[in-house]
Amino acid sequence: MSTYKTERKALDHSHHLSELAIRRGVSPLKGLFKYAAKPGMLVLAGGLPHEDYFPFDSISAQALVPDSYSTSSAIESNTESWFWKMLGLGSSKETRTKSLTIPRYPTEFGQVNLATSLQYGSATGIVQLQKIMKEFSGNVFQPSYDDWTTMIHTGNTDAWTRCVLTLLNPGEGFLTEEWTYPSAIASAAPYQIKPVSVPIDAFGMRAEALRQLLAGWDESARGMKRPRVMYTVPVGQNPSGVNVPFSRKKEIYDICVEYDIIIVEDDPYYFQQFAAYSPEGASEPTSSSPYSAKKYLASLVPSYLKIDHQGRVIRLDTFSKTIAPGSRLGWFTCAPLFAERLERQGETTTQAPCGFGQSLITQLLTNWQYEGYIRWLHGINAQYEMRRNQLIKSLADAFEVTPAPRLATGMWSGCDVLVASEKILPSSTIDEKRVFGRKQYFSFVPPAAGMFLWIKVHFAEHPAVLRGDEDELTLEMKLFVALAEGGVLIAPGWYFSADSTENHDEERGQGHYRIAFSHASPEEMKKACDVFASVLHQFFSH
Amino acid sequence: MSTYKTERKALDHSHHLSELAIRRGVSPLKGLFKYAAKPGMLVLAGGLPHEDYFPFDSISAQALVPDSYSTSSAIESNTESWFWKMLGLGSSKETRTKSLTIPRYPTEFGQVNLATSLQYGSATGIVQLQKIMKEFSGNVFQPSYDDWTTMIHTGNTDAWTRCVLTLLNPGEGFLTEEWTYPSAIASAAPYQIKPVSVPIDAFGMRAEALRQLLAGWDESARGMKRPRVMYTVPVGQNPSGVNVPFSRKKEIYDICVEYDIIIVEDDPYYFQQFAAYSPEGASEPTSSSPYSAKKYLASLVPSYLKIDHQGRVIRLDTFSKTIAPGSRLGWFTCAPLFAERLERQGETTTQAPCGFGQSLITQLLTNWQYEGYIRWLHGINAQYEMRRNQLIKSLADAFEVTPAPRLATGMWSGCDVLVASEKILPSSTIDEKRVFGRKQYFSFVPPAAGMFLWIKVHFAEHPAVLRGDEDELTLEMKLFVALAEGGVLIAPGWYFSADSTENHDEERGQGHYRIAFSHASPEEMKKACDVFASVLHQFFSH
Repeated sequence: MSTYKTERKALDHSHHLSELAIRRGVSPLKGLFKYAAKPGMLVLAGGLPHEDYFPFDSISAQALVPDSYSTSSAIESNTESWFWKMLGLGSSKETRTKSLTIPRYPTEFGQVNLATSLQYGSATGIVQLQKIMKEFSGNVFQPSYDDWTTMIHTGNTDAWTRCVLTLLNPGEGFLTEEWTYPSAIASAAPYQIKPVSVPIDAFGMRAEALRQLLAGWDESARGMKRPRVMYTVPVGQNPSGVNVPFSRKKEIYDICVEYDIIIVEDDPYYFQQFAAYSPEGASEPTSSSPYSAKKYLASLVPSYLKIDHQGRVIRLDTFSKTIAPGSRLGWFTCAPLFAERLERQGETTTQAPCGFGQSLITQLLTNWQYEGYIRWLHGINAQYEMRRNQLIKSLADAFEVTPAPRLATGMWSGCDVLVASEKILPSSTIDEKRVFGRKQYFSFVPPAAGMFLWIKVHFAEHPAVLRGDEDELTLEMKLFVALAEGGVLIAPGWYFSADSTENHDEERGQGHYRIAFSHASPEEMKKACDVFASVLHQFFSH
Repeated sequence: MSTYKTERKALDHSHHLSELAIRRGVSPLKGLFKYAAKPGMLVLAGGLPHEDYFPFDSISAQALVPDSYSTSSAIESNTESWFWKMLGLGSSKETRTKSLTIPRYPTEFGQVNLATSLQYGSATGIVQLQKIMKEFSGNVFQPSYDDWTTMIHTGNTDAWTRCVLTLLNPGEGFLTEEWTYPSAIASAAPYQIKPVSVPIDAFGMRAEALRQLLAGWDESARGMKRPRVMYTVPVGQNPSGVNVPFSRKKEIYDICVEYDIIIVEDDPYYFQQFAAYSPEGASEPTSSSPYSAKKYLASLVPSYLKIDHQGRVIRLDTFSKTIAPGSRLGWFTCAPLFAERLERQGETTTQAPCGFGQSLITQLLTNWQYEGYIRWLHGINAQYEMRRNQLIKSLADAFEVTPAPRLATGMWSGCDVLVASEKILPSSTIDEKRVFGRKQYFSFVPPAAGMFLWIKVHFAEHPAVLRGDEDELTLEMKLFVALAEGGVLIAPGWYFSADSTENHDEERGQGHYRIAFSHASPEEMKKACDVFASVLHQFFSH
C-alpha cells in the first residue's frame, strides 16, 4: 500500500448528486444484517444457492508472462515475425506461459476462492481484487487527498452511464471535447442530458476556451444551466489521439475548481503513451535489470488524480485495453461520497461483476504481482507505439509525407504537423513532379497516445468545393463510401462530433477521419494505405 | 431447433415503450458498417485492441458431469454424506468431472473462440450461446407465437431494471405480488416507479383480486394511471415459495390481455419445482435409461410463454440458480420489439456480458449438450426438494408439527397448512401435554418450488398483543432480534412487503419470516430449528 499522506480530505460534493442518486435508498437490511458477520451464526436468511451445486470444480488458464513483449517499439525488419514479436517466445511458447488454477476452495496461499467468486457477491467486487486495485491506484495515480477510494465496475461505458445518472439531471449538460467518444453521448442522450462542446487543440481541451465558455454562459440562450460535470478522455483522446500535457491538466483542473465542476476522467489509454514520433527510429528498450516499473510510470503524463486536492475527479480505469475488452471489468477511483452512490446503483443493475472474469483476472494479477503487471503494461505500450510508427511508415510509403510549416493558430498551432501529398512516382510527368502543383490530400499530427490517427482531408482543395457544388460534410461521407467500396474502412469524423450543429469553427473546409492502428497487421496497413492513395487520387480528380 | 409453428405473430406493443426507450437512438454507424462484413475488407475503423495482446492463451475448467446429482430427493440416513451426495462420485471424484478447454483460437470443432469472446462483442452475446439459449427457450418454454426471440443479459436484476426503463415512465406503477422480491422494488423506486400490490394466496397472485383492482382503478384516488406492467415470480415465489398452477397462469394472462398489460416473468426457480410434500417419503429417482429430459420437463408447470399468443410476456432466465450466481448471465425471451430496445440499452451500459463467463458457460453447455443440461437441472431440482424436506423434518423434530384444518378463506384457503406448536417433551407436565392448551407458534405451507419457506407466526396469541401493548409489526422485529441474538438469522417479512402501508388485509395478527433452505447443511438446519423452538418458548412466555 502506498504510504504517502496529503493531510487533505475530499470536499463535500453532495450538491452534485442527481435527484435520482439522492433517491436511491440504502438497503433496509443493512442494519439488520450486522448479525450475519457474527461467528457461528446460522444464516438461513439469504437466498444463496449452495456452492456445491456450481458445476465448475476449478477453472484455470495459461497466461502469458509479464515480459512477453519487448519494451522497444522498433519495427522489426521481418514483417512476418513483427506481429508476434514476443521476445524469446517463438517456438518455445510453452515455456513463456504460466499456469493459473482457481480451485473451488483454495488449496494454496494466495489462491482465489472460486466458490466465493461464483456466489452472490458485493457490488464492490471480490476482496482481493479490491485490494489490488486500491494499491494500484495509490501507487500509480497518487491522488492528492487522503480519503479517496476505489470500486470495481463493469467497464468504462457502464461506469460513465452510472456517473451520468449519479451526477446529472434531465435537461443538464456535460462538458466534453468537441470531438469525443460517441458512446459517451449515446449513454446520456436518452436521459435528455446533452454534451457541451469545448474546442480542442493538439494538447487537448483548450483551457482559455473552457474558461470563456463558462464565464460567458448564458443560461437562457443555451436553454441549460451552466454545466457542473466534465467528461474527458485526456490520454490518446478518442478520436483525436491527443495526449493532454500535465501543465494543461493543471489549468483545466483550476478552472474546474473555480466553476465547481466534477471531472469524469475516462482514461482507457493511460498505459499507451508514446515517445514523440520520429521517422528515424523508435524508442530504445529499457535496459535496466531488474526491470524498473518506476521508470516507466515516470515517463507517463500523470492522471488528473495527481492534482485532485478536492476529490472532484471520478477516474475510470478499465482492463479492456490492458487485459481484454471481454473482461468487462474496471474500477472507479474517487471520493467516498461518489463511490457509495455508484455502489448503490450497481446493486440494482449488474450487482457484482462476473465471477469468472473477476477470479481469473485477480489470479493473473496475483501471479504477476505489481511489478509484473507494470512490465506487461510497458510491453503493450511499446507494441502500440510500434503500430503507430508502422501506420505512419505505411502512409509515408503511399504518399509524399512532409512537415508542414508551423501554424500560429487553430487546432494544430504550435506542433509538428505532417502533410500527405500525392506521391511522385518515377513515372510521373515533369508537371506532376512540380512540388507546388502537387495535391496536398490531408494532414495529421502523429498521435502521442492511444490507438488512433486523426486526419484532416483538405476538401477545401477539392474541385467540387472550389466550384461551389459540394460542402466538406457531403464529401466526407462520399469519400468514406468510395474508400469502403475500394476495400478500406475508416471512421468518418462526423460520428465523433460533440456538436450536432457541426460548429467546429476552425475546421472549415476539412473532412475528418479516425484511423485505428490497434488491430490491422503491417501488411493490412500497407495495403490500406495504397488503396487510400489510389482512391484519393480518383476522388480529387473530379 | 424446435420446429413447432403457431402461425401467430406478436402484437404491436410499441405503445408500451417508455419515453426513455423511444429516445434511445440506433447507432448512426449501423448503416455504414454494413461494409465491415464484406470479405477481404481492411478494417481500420473500430477501436479494437489486438487479440494477441490478451494475456490469456487459453482458459479451461474441470466441470462436473450432468448426472453428478441423483434425481431422487430422498434424504440419506447418513447425514455426513447427505450433503455431497454426488452419485458415484465419492472417492473417485476425478472420474466424474470433465475437462473443458477454450484456446485463444479453436483447434477442434465446437470449441469456443477465446479471442472472439474476449474481444469487444455484441450486446446480444457470443453467437454460440445465443443459439443455445434460443433453442433451449423454444424446446422448454414453447412460446405461443412464432417471432419471439432471445437475448443474453447480465442477470435478472439488471434485466428487470432494463425492463423498468424500457416500459415505464416516472410516476407509473407496476403490478406485483403483495409480498415480493425487494430488489425489484429497489430497482424501480429511484425512477419514481412504484409497486402496486396484488393479494396472493397459496396459488400465487389472485386472479379475481387482480381483476377487481384493475376494473375499479381510480386514477385520481391512486394518483397514478392504471398499471400497464406486471412483475411476477410465478415459480417458488420469493418470499412465499408459491408455485402458480397453469390454470391460474391462464386466468392471469387473460386478464392481462383484457387490460393490455405486459408481463415480466422473472423465473429464476423454474427448474426447482417440487413434488407435494409428504412426511412419509420423497419422490423416486427417474429409472428410465437413457435419461429422458422430456419426462422431467413435462413435470414442470409451464411458463407464461406457453400461453403467450400475443407476445406480451418478457421472460427473464438466469444461470444464477442453475450454474452459479457469479455467472451474472441470463437471457430474455420476448417479442422482437422489446429485445431490440433492451439491446440498445445494453449497448450503453454493460455492452456484452463478460467474455470469460460467456465462453466457459458456452463450452460447458456445448459439452453437456441439451439432454445433459436438462439432466443437470433435474439433479439440482432433486437437491433442493431434499433440502425442503430436510428443513421441514428439522422443524418437525423441534416442534409439534400437525395439519391444520382446511381454511375456506384467506391466503391459505384450500391447501394443506401445517401448524408448529410447542413440543411435548417426555418430561412435560400433564398440563403442558394438553393439546388445546399447547401454544401454536406458527403455520406454513410446504413450499412447492424454489428456495424458501414462508412462515406466519401467530402473534395474535402473544401475551403482549392480548394485553394490547404491542402490534404484530413490532413483535416481528423483536423476534427477529431475539433469534439473531440466539444465533439464527432469518429474514423478516416486512422487508418483502410490496405495500408500504402494510395493508395485507387477511394477515392481521401475523408476523412473517422467510427461511432459506438453499444453503444451510442438515446439521445447521437442525441446530437452527432447536434454537428457534427455544427462542419462541421464551418469546411467548411474557
